[in-house]
Amino acid sequence: MNVYVGLLGCGTVGQGVVNLTQKRAGIIADMTGYRPVVKRVLVRDLAKRRDVDLNSEVFTRDADVVLADPEIQVIVETMGGIEPARTYILAALRRGKHVVTANKDLIALHGVEILETARDAGVDILFEASVGGAIPLIGPLQDNLTANEVTDLKGIINGTTNYILTQMTETGMDFAQALAEAQELGYAEANPASDVDGLDAARKLVILASIAFHAHVRLDEVRVEGIRTVTAQDVAYAKELGTVVKLVASGSDRGGKLSLSVRPTLIPQGHPLAHVSGSYNALFVRGDAAGDLMFFGRGAGSLPTASAVMGDVISLLRNMRLGVTSSRNHRLVLDKQVQMDDSEPLRHYLRMSVSDQPGVFAEIARLFAVAGISMETVLQKRVTAGTAEIVVVTHEIPVEVMNETIDRLRTSSHVQQVHCVMPVEALAE
Amino acid sequence: MNVYVGLLGCGTVGQGVVNLTQKRAGIIADMTGYRPVVKRVLVRDLAKRRDVDLNSEVFTRDADVVLADPEIQVIVETMGGIEPARTYILAALRRGKHVVTANKDLIALHGVEILETARDAGVDILFEASVGGAIPLIGPLQDNLTANEVTDLKGIINGTTNYILTQMTETGMDFAQALAEAQELGYAEANPASDVDGLDAARKLVILASIAFHAHVRLDEVRVEGIRTVTAQDVAYAKELGTVVKLVASGSDRGGKLSLSVRPTLIPQGHPLAHVSGSYNALFVRGDAAGDLMFFGRGAGSLPTASAVMGDVISLLRNMRLGVTSSRNHRLVLDKQVQMDDSEPLRHYLRMSVSDQPGVFAEIARLFAVAGISMETVLQKRVTAGTAEIVVVTHEIPVEVMNETIDRLRTSSHVQQVHCVMPVEALAE
Repeated sequence: MNVYVGLLGCGTVGQGVVNLTQKRAGIIADMTGYRPVVKRVLVRDLAKRRDVDLNSEVFTRDADVVLADPEIQVIVETMGGIEPARTYILAALRRGKHVVTANKDLIALHGVEILETARDAGVDILFEASVGGAIPLIGPLQDNLTANEVTDLKGIINGTTNYILTQMTETGMDFAQALAEAQELGYAEANPASDVDGLDAARKLVILASIAFHAHVRLDEVRVEGIRTVTAQDVAYAKELGTVVKLVASGSDRGGKLSLSVRPTLIPQGHPLAHVSGSYNALFVRGDAAGDLMFFGRGAGSLPTASAVMGDVISLLRNMRLGVTSSRNHRLVLDKQVQMDDSEPLRHYLRMSVSDQPGVFAEIARLFAVAGISMETVLQKRVTAGTAEIVVVTHEIPVEVMNETIDRLRTSSHVQQVHCVMPVEALAE
Repeated sequence: MNVYVGLLGCGTVGQGVVNLTQKRAGIIADMTGYRPVVKRVLVRDLAKRRDVDLNSEVFTRDADVVLADPEIQVIVETMGGIEPARTYILAALRRGKHVVTANKDLIALHGVEILETARDAGVDILFEASVGGAIPLIGPLQDNLTANEVTDLKGIINGTTNYILTQMTETGMDFAQALAEAQELGYAEANPASDVDGLDAARKLVILASIAFHAHVRLDEVRVEGIRTVTAQDVAYAKELGTVVKLVASGSDRGGKLSLSVRPTLIPQGHPLAHVSGSYNALFVRGDAAGDLMFFGRGAGSLPTASAVMGDVISLLRNMRLGVTSSRNHRLVLDKQVQMDDSEPLRHYLRMSVSDQPGVFAEIARLFAVAGISMETVLQKRVTAGTAEIVVVTHEIPVEVMNETIDRLRTSSHVQQVHCVMPVEALAE
């Protein structure tokens, strides 16, 4: 029996969905009893060449042609962005159509509204593809790990920044150069702000943290710092310290108090996240029962993202066969507060330029001692006549104490500049 | 509303299940609408001290007390072994009880019978905990990745051997020494055969391959080789070659022809499996759409395994709430043949002792050339007067060609012994 699918958007991911649907229709029919058929595709430009084998009448510029078609039971949204995607999805849900979406921005910002609309309408909304591309993340967090209290999430969930940082690590090139190369290769957009400033990772973190911690998490509750301040020198020092710089989206739950951040972070070589290179993504999860877990794979791309979309479509078809929707399950939202007070203790990496004269190091050591910060490692190098560079790795201290100390360092007459401050991840258990 | 659980076996994992059920009962009730309560526990020895907070009347030595209790709707089996677990589980299913099991041996050897019995009875049988401990593997393969044609599975799915090989790699100790240490620490059993000879990994591979490839796979279709032949020298040469020795459970699907093996294997440092150390487990999966994925975590232990069991229990409770069972889903078994003919081309590592005299290397090179095998790397070292050791890494050749060549090497008057042959994994994409 055919189940008709309406597709909103036919870019890279949408084309992957069309191709994968056609390639696997027979086996999906054997598996679920339903054969998915793409009946309508909403596009902006009818004339554009697309790498799909569909009749030209399937394409339309009119959203209503897709959304109002009573034969279409499943809407797949791969257009991205907030509007008009939000309006279309809400309309589809209200008309009783199930929706699968790959739209991280929409779920991160309007997830609650969309989930509630789906529940009220008695239909499914699935969004595995919105985070981590092909990597199953939402499924495992929502199903397999639900007996756990998840205490920590650490994700490398932005491929563009991971590609840039990997290039910097492997070749010694600086940020600007690595970015330019990534843009040339299509791994970074012409306007790379959303990726390199950490916003894309923050949106994905909102989705993952909401599910893992059973809480409503808002984007403005995530401390976000991008990778523009990371220099080739920092990357080289990180290597000397037996670590590697990664943009880490981090969430922790300490007895119901959440801390959420996206920051460039030093990961020790023995940590499983240290080996997640290039455009790969990974999520590290610590549960009170499961211990440490990691999920690794392709975080973007046409077929990897389509793979996740189609996994959701197959779940939908199975639900339809059983006459149920996942949204009829109880959902749990616990009353958890997000802490923005920087009280979480972390090890810190700190690079600064100081005047190269006797007594300077003693003065800096005194400033650390006064704040109660003990140093784990210190590297000191002469850079030019009159200027030395000092790199310090501290033991665990709260971010707020570190920040106060940095302010004090900045006012010291011996310190020329504090260049870069990054947390240093502990080893996995 | 309470849902009563009967537990079969109360060893390490069973105790974890009891503790986790009690700790999380409230939140599971909020999540699913049902509060799981352990009502009966089948044990062999009533007097044994157990680290659980249960009334003594809960324990029984009589399986019928558990299986015939009409209030018990869910049976959790953590006793292990084939009998009497098989008889108990079949009886429970036939009485309309849902079953969650952590029993890899049973599912690997009698999975078909058990799944069919569950389907006929209209109840669920879930077994995520049977492979990979806390790591979600069966869920992702059965749900998220179903739109993929999975072409390759590579698993480090036996913690004991991984601990032993990691110790050998890190300290240079030999197999016997590392095994003795693992036994002392409780990571290896007094009779370690099932682990070190690869049988445990082979059973888990049968389960994973059946699901990933949608095929009936039998244990006798897996080529199994353990790690007893791996010496400290091999581990050292592996390091020199930029690789690390792991016991890899490997399955591949080439157009419907399956190859299955468990063998010590050289993994290059750039491969995500190379960094899976100690008692951790991991499964590497390649799908035609998803690309390369890896799932990593604790493969054994009380709470990690209980975490997976409880994930299944929660799925069950959700299904009960929706009035469905997963076993009502269509299941797909494709007609696939397992190849035992060793035609899969692999790179090979080969270590042999030869007489240390002019012309010997030329003779060996000739034997390789005759078989059409080209060598990628050759290491030659003088070991003692009169004997040199040669290590060869070949380009990709079918196992059968390698084996013929080894036979020919063994009959050569210059070759004293062929010590160790292992496949060498290619880098991930």
